[in-house]
Amino acid sequence: MELKTPTALLVAALAAAAVHAAEAPAPPAPTPRAMADILAASAPSDWRPLDPENTLYVDLAPRAGQSFGPQDGRVVIEMAPAFAPNHVANVKALVREHYFDGIPFVRSQENYVVQWGDPEDDAAKQRPMQNGKRALAAEFDRPIGKELPFVQLADGDVYAPEVGHVQGLPVARDPAHGRAWLAHCYAMVGAGRGDTADSGSGAEIYVVIGHAPRHLDRNVTLFGRVVKGMELLSTLPRGTAALGFYEQASERTPIKSIRVAADVPAAERTNLEVLRTDTATWTELVASRRMRPEGWFLNKAGHIDLCNVPIPVRAVPAPAGQPAK
Amino acid sequence: MELKTPTALLVAALAAAAVHAAEAPAPPAPTPRAMADILAASAPSDWRPLDPENTLYVDLAPRAGQSFGPQDGRVVIEMAPAFAPNHVANVKALVREHYFDGIPFVRSQENYVVQWGDPEDDAAKQRPMQNGKRALAAEFDRPIGKELPFVQLADGDVYAPEVGHVQGLPVARDPAHGRAWLAHCYAMVGAGRGDTADSGSGAEIYVVIGHAPRHLDRNVTLFGRVVKGMELLSTLPRGTAALGFYEQASERTPIKSIRVAADVPAAERTNLEVLRTDTATWTELVASRRMRPEGWFLNKAGHIDLCNVPIPVRAVPAPAGQPAK
Repeated sequence: MELKTPTALLVAALAAAAVHAAEAPAPPAPTPRAMADILAASAPSDWRPLDPENTLYVDLAPRAGQSFGPQDGRVVIEMAPAFAPNHVANVKALVREHYFDGIPFVRSQENYVVQWGDPEDDAAKQRPMQNGKRALAAEFDRPIGKELPFVQLADGDVYAPEVGHVQGLPVARDPAHGRAWLAHCYAMVGAGRGDTADSGSGAEIYVVIGHAPRHLDRNVTLFGRVVKGMELLSTLPRGTAALGFYEQASERTPIKSIRVAADVPAAERTNLEVLRTDTATWTELVASRRMRPEGWFLNKAGHIDLCNVPIPVRAVPAPAGQPAK
Repeated sequence: MELKTPTALLVAALAAAAVHAAEAPAPPAPTPRAMADILAASAPSDWRPLDPENTLYVDLAPRAGQSFGPQDGRVVIEMAPAFAPNHVANVKALVREHYFDGIPFVRSQENYVVQWGDPEDDAAKQRPMQNGKRALAAEFDRPIGKELPFVQLADGDVYAPEVGHVQGLPVARDPAHGRAWLAHCYAMVGAGRGDTADSGSGAEIYVVIGHAPRHLDRNVTLFGRVVKGMELLSTLPRGTAALGFYEQASERTPIKSIRVAADVPAAERTNLEVLRTDTATWTELVASRRMRPEGWFLNKAGHIDLCNVPIPVRAVPAPAGQPAK
């Protein structure tokens, strides 16, 4: 019953897509394996390590009643220079001048976003920047780019002509205009902005903690995805002012520090791998989530939406050449 | 610029839908008002009160570090007897025999669900029931039912042939088979079950706290929606065992009591109204969320997915004839 050959799976997926589009009869698709089995049988080459130069460690200070071990308060963000190179560079510049250390979460809005940044509205009193910038040209979308390994999701999308994944990120595309952009799925990370397109820079950062707010697509620059520690963000107490802002400074959880992983001693790193999204294993995983083979699912959905596709991440030992202290 | 007549709006919405379907040119649609303006201008008849006989108050006990005023720990659930009459009746029977009082949350799974129920696996030691039942026939879907005021969403859906709203609930439909079912959007409330369809009853209850897990549609009986207090559920600490179950009993937040609103003295009730989903005001609201008129939105989505449509709820004074104590 279990299907082992990725080629057969790919054919099955395409057949299923054709049925959906044309309502024509087709041979029954073979049942994919459950996700747990797919991951257990995956090859090392199905995974890729995070690039330390494009990985952020956001270490939170514990709130009242919390106590953290060395890495318990850590949120890990994989940044996306292919989509927002200037924002990624600016965030790294800010991180490296310790701009964010001690900066608090200013906002936690139910079923929407959490956000951190300088809470001071008075420009004269704001935390100074050395190399970082307070405003940057928007990077809302980019050319589709044949060099990007886009793997399309056959299920369609309410918002965009095409959706799929690029390098572990949910992506929407408009082939008629040749544009691609990151999609606002759960755990995506963006640069808050004011009223104008070019008023953000990554000095204020938000993370999606609710149902995908896809209406934000192409309105804000997304520049990464949380790959570990979402539960630290999603359980932050909600703010009670408009838009989930905290009313009192005492309600704000501070960030202890943000660091670029490359700047962190090997022994203090969080070593993760992300499942590649351009492999036969990935194709089988999507098929498995579309038509859940686990016995508990009595009615198989037969479809899946972009933001409901999991992008697996796993902890791995420190890479060779980086022995623990 | 602002559009005041609901009839014109309806025409605009239909025109927009036609453009989307046929890619034919159409006159530009007038800009809808922002949601805040629509709600501020709404008539009393655009709203409906909750039916106290179909409303649950789930009052949580404070966790360490929390302190609650009289209603601060309250989650309000509107039940849906039109979709799950037997589950609603059973939950009410269980509530009225105080079955849930002292029952804890046993599960909090990141980007998925929270769940409460008797944590005891040994049937001999489980909390006894008098009138409630431990298992009921599934109510996964129902006939479409011409008596239900279904208002279709023109934007389509990845999972179902038709989606829209019925009486303040997100609903999917399959006209070819004449079936309708509640959709797993954020804040929807369902009856946990075991491996067989008929193994749930509402004695274990879950609430969606993440991106819509639509693959659960027609696999579990949904019987209501949280209309107030979601932040109490979504910020519960996540469990660290498989599926977000808590590993230790000490991690579980207890429920102080669940009551049917009709059984609660008027002075202790939470008086809410929900925006009707079968009015011109509703149609304008959906149009406004599809094409956000607020100046901040530089690129209007032009589409909206079912679970991204807000269903507004407002606090109101106690109804006449129910004076405060």
